[in-house]
Order: sequence, then C-alpha cells, then structure tokens
Amino acid sequence: MTYSTLWQRRDQALGTGAELFYDKPLEIVRGEGTYLFDSEGNRYVDMYNNVPCVGHANPAVVKAMAEQQATLNVHSRYLHEGIVTFAERLIALHHDGIESAVFSCSGTEAVEVAIQMARLVTGHKGIICTDATYHGNSELVGSMSYLGTEMSEMGHIRAFPFPELYRPLEEGLSEEQLCDRYLARVECSIESLKAEGSDFAALIMCSIFANEGPPEIPSGFMEKVTKLVHNEGGLVIADEVQSGYGRTGVWWGYEKTHFLPDMVVTGKPMGNGLPISATAARKDFVDAFRAQKDYFNTCAATPLQAAVGMAVLDEIERLDLVRNASEVGDRLISKLKEKVPEHDWIGDARGFGLFLGVEIVKDSASKDPDAELTLLLSNRLKEKGFLVSYSGRFNNVLKIRPPLVFSHENADAFLVAFDECIGELSE
Amino acid sequence: MTYSTLWQRRDQALGTGAELFYDKPLEIVRGEGTYLFDSEGNRYVDMYNNVPCVGHANPAVVKAMAEQQATLNVHSRYLHEGIVTFAERLIALHHDGIESAVFSCSGTEAVEVAIQMARLVTGHKGIICTDATYHGNSELVGSMSYLGTEMSEMGHIRAFPFPELYRPLEEGLSEEQLCDRYLARVECSIESLKAEGSDFAALIMCSIFANEGPPEIPSGFMEKVTKLVHNEGGLVIADEVQSGYGRTGVWWGYEKTHFLPDMVVTGKPMGNGLPISATAARKDFVDAFRAQKDYFNTCAATPLQAAVGMAVLDEIERLDLVRNASEVGDRLISKLKEKVPEHDWIGDARGFGLFLGVEIVKDSASKDPDAELTLLLSNRLKEKGFLVSYSGRFNNVLKIRPPLVFSHENADAFLVAFDECIGELSE
Repeated sequence: MTYSTLWQRRDQALGTGAELFYDKPLEIVRGEGTYLFDSEGNRYVDMYNNVPCVGHANPAVVKAMAEQQATLNVHSRYLHEGIVTFAERLIALHHDGIESAVFSCSGTEAVEVAIQMARLVTGHKGIICTDATYHGNSELVGSMSYLGTEMSEMGHIRAFPFPELYRPLEEGLSEEQLCDRYLARVECSIESLKAEGSDFAALIMCSIFANEGPPEIPSGFMEKVTKLVHNEGGLVIADEVQSGYGRTGVWWGYEKTHFLPDMVVTGKPMGNGLPISATAARKDFVDAFRAQKDYFNTCAATPLQAAVGMAVLDEIERLDLVRNASEVGDRLISKLKEKVPEHDWIGDARGFGLFLGVEIVKDSASKDPDAELTLLLSNRLKEKGFLVSYSGRFNNVLKIRPPLVFSHENADAFLVAFDECIGELSE
Repeated sequence: MTYSTLWQRRDQALGTGAELFYDKPLEIVRGEGTYLFDSEGNRYVDMYNNVPCVGHANPAVVKAMAEQQATLNVHSRYLHEGIVTFAERLIALHHDGIESAVFSCSGTEAVEVAIQMARLVTGHKGIICTDATYHGNSELVGSMSYLGTEMSEMGHIRAFPFPELYRPLEEGLSEEQLCDRYLARVECSIESLKAEGSDFAALIMCSIFANEGPPEIPSGFMEKVTKLVHNEGGLVIADEVQSGYGRTGVWWGYEKTHFLPDMVVTGKPMGNGLPISATAARKDFVDAFRAQKDYFNTCAATPLQAAVGMAVLDEIERLDLVRNASEVGDRLISKLKEKVPEHDWIGDARGFGLFLGVEIVKDSASKDPDAELTLLLSNRLKEKGFLVSYSGRFNNVLKIRPPLVFSHENADAFLVAFDECIGELSE
C-alpha cells in the first residue's frame, strides 16, 4: 500500500474533503506516551492531542478496557456498581453545586443534554454563546459554531463577542471598563432574546474560551457574567470538554478562571480515546431531565465507560498529571512570552497550563492576523518532529495542547525547534 | 454493598428516574455469549440486547480492542489504513448506490449527519417520519420521537401513520388499497411541508419499523413509498441502527422489506459495545457534506473504531450469524405464531429474523392493547431466566431481539418458559 493509494482510497471511502492535518498529511501507525510514529518510523512529539491525556497506549487504560470488555459491557438499564462509582468520583471533583451526572458518548451529545436540561428547568428557550466558539456538530449545537454576528439558523440563540485583552472590543479603556463593555454585550443578547419571546435559559461557554484563543480574559469577567446570568434568571453551562481534566493545571477550567457554573459538560479526555462524555448539574435539575426526557443512550453509562473512565482518573492521580500540566505549562509559556518582544510577528503568547496559544501576526503594531504564516509554522514544526495545530477566530494562533504526560524535556526540545523555525523565517 | 444501597447511590449519582428494567431491577455483573449473570450468580438468556451482536465478551472483539488501544487510538485527521478499510468493507455490504461513509459515535449522531446531509443536497428543510418512531435523543432527532399526530416543536417535520396490517388505517380494504391509503398519508405530509414553505428533503424510516412494532407491512409499500419520495424530489434515509447487521436474517433490513435507500444509518451492533455509528450515501452527497460542514467527530473514525468494527464483521462471517438469525428466527416465529389462535390475549406474533414481537391484547376481537399484562410477562420471564422487554406504540409488544449468537437451544428453552407463563396466567 503506497501512501498516495491510501489517500485516494480514503477520499473514496470517507468522502473527498474529510479533514486532514498538514500539507503532506501524516500516516500515523503507533503511539506511546507523548510520541506518535508514522509509517516510515519517524517519531513526533504530540503537542496537539488532548484526548490521550494519560498518554498514547497507556497500559493501565488498555488493561482496564480489555478486562471490562471481557467481563461485561451492556447498556445502563441494569444496576451496575462501576458506573455509579465513576459518577460519584467525577462529581466529587467538582464544587458542591454539582451533584449528579448524565453520561453520553461525545461532547456534542453532552452539550445537547445540557441545553435540553437548561431549557427544561428554566422553561425558557434562549441560549447565549460567544461569537467565535465551537461546542459540537449536531444541528442545534452546530448552529452556535463560529456564529460571528450572524443570527443562528436554529433561532433562540444569540452570540456575544468573547472577552479578550489582545484585541479589545474598544481601545483605550481600563481593564475594568473593558470588562463592563463585554458584560453590556451579554446583556444586549439577553434583551434581544427576551424581545424575540424566547426568554433566557442559559449562557454556555468554554471556561477558558479554548477555541476563541484562548484569550487573556478581563479580570473579574467570569464571576461578574455568572452573577449577571443568575440575576436574569438564567443558568451558566461550563463547557469543560477542552478545559477540564487537569488541562489548565487545576482540575477544571472554571477553577482557573474563577466562577461556579450550574452545569458542567465534559468529554474528550475522559476515556483516553474511548468515547465518553457527561453532563453534571444539581440533582434536582438532573431529576427533572430524567423525569421529562426519558433520556437513554445505548453505549453510554456502560460498565466499559466506567472502567476506562476510572482508569483514566487513577492514572491522572498516580502520575500527578494536574501538577505536571501546571509546572510544564507555566515554564513553557514563560519561555514563549520572552519571544513576543523579540519578534514582530509573534503578537502574543498566552494560555492556561497545557493549553497554550501563540498568536501570529503580520506585525505587532497592526496585530493583523497571519493565518498563512501560522499554517507554514505548523507544517515546519511537523517536519521537525513536533505536532501542533492552529485555532482562534482568524486561524492564526498556534495551538499547543499536548497529552498531560508532556514533560519539561518535551517542552525544551520544542523550544529548540521553534527557535530554528524563527531563524529560518528570519533568513 | 447491598443491592438497595447500590440503587440509592445510583439515584443520587445518575439522578432519580434514570431508566431501569423490571420491577426488581437486575444487578448484572458478567456476560458471556447469549448469557448474562447477576450478582447472585443467576444466569439469564439475553433476548433483548442487540448491541453485543457477536456475543457478550466475545474474545476476538476483546483482543482486537486491546491490541489497537495498545498500538494507536487517535483522531481521524491523520491517514490511517484501518478506518479506510473498515469503511470499504461496510460500503461493500450495501447496494451500489452507497459509496462513502461518515463515522460518528451514536445512532443519534449518525441520524443528525443524515438529516444535515439530506437538507444540504436537496436545499430543502422538510423531513417526514412515522408517528410512532424513535431515531435518537438530540433536540432535532428527539423531536421526531413518538410524535403521534402532534406537530414537532422543531418545525420542518411531519409524521405519517406507520404502515401495518394488524391495526390498519382503515378496515375492510384489500392489502393493495390499504397500501395506497398509507401512501396517500405520506403525500399529505409532503404537501403540508410544501405549504409551510419548508419544502421536502427526506423521508427517514427504520427499514422494518422496529420501534413501531415491528409491523407486518402492506405488500409493496416500501418500494412504492421510495418511488413517491423520489418523484417528489426527496431522499429516503434508512435507519438501520436496529434492523441492520444481519438482524433480520439478511444483512440489511431494506433487503428484507425490498427497497433501495439513498442513505443508510447504522449504529448499535457495529462495535459490540464500543460506540460506533455511520452514515453512508452516494459519494457526491458525502463530498458535499464534507465540503460544506467541515464535520469532525473527535472519537469517531479512529483506529479503535476501525479495529473493533472489523473484528465484529469478521465474527459475524466466521460464525455465520446472518444465517443463524434467519434460521433461529424463522423457527422461533413459526412456533410463536402457533400460539396466536390458541390464546385470546396473544393478538399477533410477527417479525423479521431475530427481531420478533408478540402483541399482547385484552382479547383478539377488540385488539385492545394490554400493556399491564405485557409488563407482567416480561417480569415473569425474567424470573424464569429470560430477558425480554416491550415496545410498540402501546407498549404492549413483547420485544425479542437477542444477540445474533442466540441458538435453537436458547429459543427452545424460551418456548418452555413462555408456555409456563401462559399456564400460570390461565390459572
């Protein structure tokens, strides 16, 4: 099988345009820890994949998966100790307002549950999200994605500009004034929903606005917006699919950005590759949802999800990965920040724990996004053995989001490669 | 841990009202082949679970799962031989009109893809489904569930009465006339969508109307409704989540009920418990979807889904399970049909392969559904070591849908237990 034949067969079998990374896509055949290996035996440091949070091919996860699948894997309408214990462990990691969980198979499904639950308990339809977010791919959730200033096709949805310091909504304001300006835009969205007759059910946001930047957030915004939403009778849904599970150096993104959500959605890293997701909330919210919706999800809340989910939690604890994310992430971002004043095209470097972004611009004065250079950088870094991607509203933010087992050594090696890229681009 | 403590903990952790089967729910701890075992060591013949199609704890599936997870399990934006080959094998099992596939993690997600794709390629919004169906639990797909004669909250959706011979739409007609009456109702739904301005995108239906009965379908209906839909510029989406994968004694339900769908949705049995689903269609439809929607599903189209999915296909072939479903199912339904004239409360026995239903009624003349007796029967059969459930519009159809490894011996043992129940109820 040649590489080009495989690519052609893929176009036929999965459809032309099924997403691929890099100008010359990689054929990855093996993974181990933070490393991925291609079909030619080349090794890459994985700095993109958050799903295999406890490492590619983690043996403890493999063992738990195989043992449970060899014992029992069945739907959730029988009693089973495993899924109850897993739910209890997940809930115990949250603040006191989170009491019960609904399991599903993807982030999209968990967001669907959260929105349905919020609409049910408030009796209202209106949902607010940011103008550059992504929460999933169903018709409802997909209609919130990268919405910009458009009205969602689905109705009952409004977007507000995500809060940031780098390209502020208005120039020349103090951080506090800027924060107020963003809050005012959230209020406008709520008013618009009320005017339409949808009324206001919930605000959904990633706790670190992962897809939006992640931006540096005006101080106090998250706490104040939570208060505003509550005053307006709405609920706050934290999408922790990317920001949760130790990613930011604490368990949850909302601990890092200082607010207490009413509902929490988790997904990607929960199963180290096994599809698992969850929506957690106050018990009376979950009870109401159970009573009204008769929700059932065939392959969710299974003994397999439970066994694998708990093995992942065990490994995060055993390997002290939350602290690792904090320490390795903090050191790496401090090194990256040093490069901002040194190179005019590095506009900003920021992030939380092991979710970091390097903003690539035409020049520091204009801050004009340079998506082309960002893409070039990600391809260059790939050739040097480091896998990153890009994100942000303008696709001009190098996205660094490695497995949580990413080490200081990995970070140092990356910095050498990054400096090489800088040198080559300056030639 | 006592049984009642576990139940209480479950209520707290998963929410009160999270679905459970049986008056006294089972704590299932182990599975093997067609058997499930509870925490007290009791053995049950599983006649409900279609997901573990090649048998609970199938060793070949466990091996494939463990080996792949120990090698590589990563998202789909790299080239990987496994997922391409799995897609090719899946497509090759369909008729020539099915050329490419989009993978996802649940039946709901696969139906979402189908509807989004149908709306995209037709440029229309309107969807038609039956009045007693269930296709999934997202806001969009859930709004089609058990719709009856209500209008869907989501808009752009119309329901028509599912075709059946047992409680026909109109009495005293020939089968051909009855078929025409059902077709006329489909036409009404299409007209209603056009009048609303949604125009008509697609008809979605389970190929055997599994949740609706499964009913005996007026001869010719499926072929004629397909023609009608095409004449009206719409597409036919076959939901094969329950009817596919050999369940009916042929690979696909649509082979059994004689029509050629434009899109096929598959799910539950594909991974023997690992979440896998797919939407397959003509390549130009999938290409258009890829181009417009930029669809990405983190834990779908992975090497793990591929390896496990292929192990399931291999086991179906090795164990000749499609033929087994045909032979065991045909013999079991013929035995069950014998009981209809013998017992006034057994209204009907029908089905396809290993998806069988026994309709429980107050008496054969009135055909009044007896949901209470159906529930009692399912509880009694459980006590005798046979796990069935119930379905249908009135919850009065004993639902028999075992793993495909279900044997003649299992069927014979069930018939003895069923006769015992009949005897006890006649006392």
